Amino acid sequence: MAQEKKRYYFDWAATALPHKNILNNVINPNLNNILANPSSQHFEGREAKHALEMAREKCANVLGVKPDTLYFTSGGTESNGIILSSLIIKNVMKQNKGRILYSAVEHPSIRENCLMLERLGFPLNIIPVEKDGCINPQSLENLIQKNPDTRFAAIMAVNNETGAIMDMDTLCKTIRQNQKAPIHVHCDLVQALGKTQVNIKAWDLDSASVSAHKLGGPRGIGLLYLKKPVEVLLKGGQESGIRPGTENTYGAIALSELIERLASPEMVQNESQKATERFGHLIRSLKAMERCSLLPEDRMEKDKRFSPWILQLRFFGIPGEVMLRALDKEGFAVSTGSACSSAAQERPVLAAMGLDEKARLEGIRISQGICTTMEEVYALLKAIEKVLEFL
Amino acid sequence: MAQEKKRYYFDWAATALPHKNILNNVINPNLNNILANPSSQHFEGREAKHALEMAREKCANVLGVKPDTLYFTSGGTESNGIILSSLIIKNVMKQNKGRILYSAVEHPSIRENCLMLERLGFPLNIIPVEKDGCINPQSLENLIQKNPDTRFAAIMAVNNETGAIMDMDTLCKTIRQNQKAPIHVHCDLVQALGKTQVNIKAWDLDSASVSAHKLGGPRGIGLLYLKKPVEVLLKGGQESGIRPGTENTYGAIALSELIERLASPEMVQNESQKATERFGHLIRSLKAMERCSLLPEDRMEKDKRFSPWILQLRFFGIPGEVMLRALDKEGFAVSTGSACSSAAQERPVLAAMGLDEKARLEGIRISQGICTTMEEVYALLKAIEKVLEFL
Repeated sequence: MAQEKKRYYFDWAATALPHKNILNNVINPNLNNILANPSSQHFEGREAKHALEMAREKCANVLGVKPDTLYFTSGGTESNGIILSSLIIKNVMKQNKGRILYSAVEHPSIRENCLMLERLGFPLNIIPVEKDGCINPQSLENLIQKNPDTRFAAIMAVNNETGAIMDMDTLCKTIRQNQKAPIHVHCDLVQALGKTQVNIKAWDLDSASVSAHKLGGPRGIGLLYLKKPVEVLLKGGQESGIRPGTENTYGAIALSELIERLASPEMVQNESQKATERFGHLIRSLKAMERCSLLPEDRMEKDKRFSPWILQLRFFGIPGEVMLRALDKEGFAVSTGSACSSAAQERPVLAAMGLDEKARLEGIRISQGICTTMEEVYALLKAIEKVLEFL
Repeated sequence: MAQEKKRYYFDWAATALPHKNILNNVINPNLNNILANPSSQHFEGREAKHALEMAREKCANVLGVKPDTLYFTSGGTESNGIILSSLIIKNVMKQNKGRILYSAVEHPSIRENCLMLERLGFPLNIIPVEKDGCINPQSLENLIQKNPDTRFAAIMAVNNETGAIMDMDTLCKTIRQNQKAPIHVHCDLVQALGKTQVNIKAWDLDSASVSAHKLGGPRGIGLLYLKKPVEVLLKGGQESGIRPGTENTYGAIALSELIERLASPEMVQNESQKATERFGHLIRSLKAMERCSLLPEDRMEKDKRFSPWILQLRFFGIPGEVMLRALDKEGFAVSTGSACSSAAQERPVLAAMGLDEKARLEGIRISQGICTTMEEVYALLKAIEKVLEFL
């Protein structure tokens, strides 16, 4: 497995490179405040509990919500799973289960579990996206008006494959203005937090999911925001009964440090501007290549519809997997579909944008992070040019 | 929160003190093989995948099972939750859902979620325990013979509050000899692995749960053993579709190192002998105190029915919470009920042993780990004597 070549990491949307400055300080098994079980009543337990609650407060301050609305989970996927599986308990005695809407471009942890709920008797509808991968508020309005039995809607803030930013402000208002009875609005913030502006309060979300490792944190820790507590499927004493299992204190501390340092509106503004400049150059150069097309084709250099951190594109006549392998050999890590899907080959996100099978198979994702440099972008462009000569 | 006094940790059953030698080597964010998402196809992803699979093999070697029967989860509670919630999907179309048996002393992550399954229409029965907290094979035989519709049984290997060791060999044989149709046997190994002898193969378990932090590992990582894959409730692409969410590579590596070093039959034999000696002295001294009674009362110094790592006892006339607080002030961390229960005050494990309310309220748990010394045991005994003078 030895590899001599310098490596360039352009797969930050799959997982961010660890934020070493923060992790080296926090993930230290010698720290006493992370030793004990925070549910224990002795001194060590209270110290751990205190550290956990300080971490929760830090996260709450940056997210603009109350600390008691945040629950630590094992990650974004589990946060999504907790809220979806809670519907089973909520609807257990009802003949008419509330209808579920979810966008056509949701992360597998939403999409595949909505299909599970369908098997359990929940009626489902998919919120379609436009060619650019964004949701048209009018489509959402039509869906809700046609389906007054809707009780749950899942809309991600930023798509993990294309970077498409959903206009959560307008979409959430559309839901509130058209709902016949309260609709629980859930938002997957995994690719948004620390990358694009997030406003849980202004959007009036009922629940939201966050993952630490997408911010450079450890695996195994995330957040679930809940405006009001829900009855969950799997019970336990921890995290106010929302998430069972011994609390991951050092994970929570690491996540809180990352959120504090990376997810403030100012930091997001600054860093996403730098990201826009880096990928602006990349987009401009790619658009000049005959064999390359962005997905969607009309994505612009500075395009408010898209997160500057994620870019989906294709090279005509080159399957995404082949391109991935060729770039990998040159030292560059990029990806095709979501690493999380059990049906990654099918590229359902690209299909929802109306792309044909050939385009879908040719799609690759390039994603950057806060450590990405202009030099790395230049090197990537050179590598693409070199690869295109041979393919 | 400053505390000057030397501290003594006797709450290893809630969470073990971190195994610093192992964790300092493994939980190092500078290691390249834990950088990327193991589901990614590029070099970094393959390195991470390789590290993950090596970790799985290490665990499998010690546990005496095939690597592809082990799935990394976020911990013991989640492992228990995955197998219980899989029954929802398995039984979704059936009018007659298979009956579930679970022992009266199961961990909250089994007990409370079995009650959830009851709400969803599953018939339940509790496997009673004797006064010593152990299951009488005859009771289990009677239950299965009376309930030929039984399809699932959950029996923990070692109880987390009393240390009672279930005779898994006999109990599992009893199930196999009396089942009318296959019964899925699930075993919570959380308090057993690395502490008492475990034999997944010989017991012919269908599934089993392991937690890393009870072995001195990080939070947020555990194992689910599955003899055959099951269809899970919450789906995703990772861990062969059994556990969704980006794989916690360094957690898995840490767990594998801990299992390799602490859970081999020889290591368990050696360490549990030392533990028996330490707690043998404790038990002998406590039995000599007029105001103290072990729970169960007839627990002996060297008692094969009990794990030498966990001791439940009471002091007459002193509520467990008061004793906990008094010992805490002397520098000793002990506990009352399970830290994981949402109904910890009720002490359902002690109730199942037939103990009256007063006895239950007076129960405290003292648990030790591999770093516990004879000197700490002497100090604990002195502290108990001192506290008893004042209470």
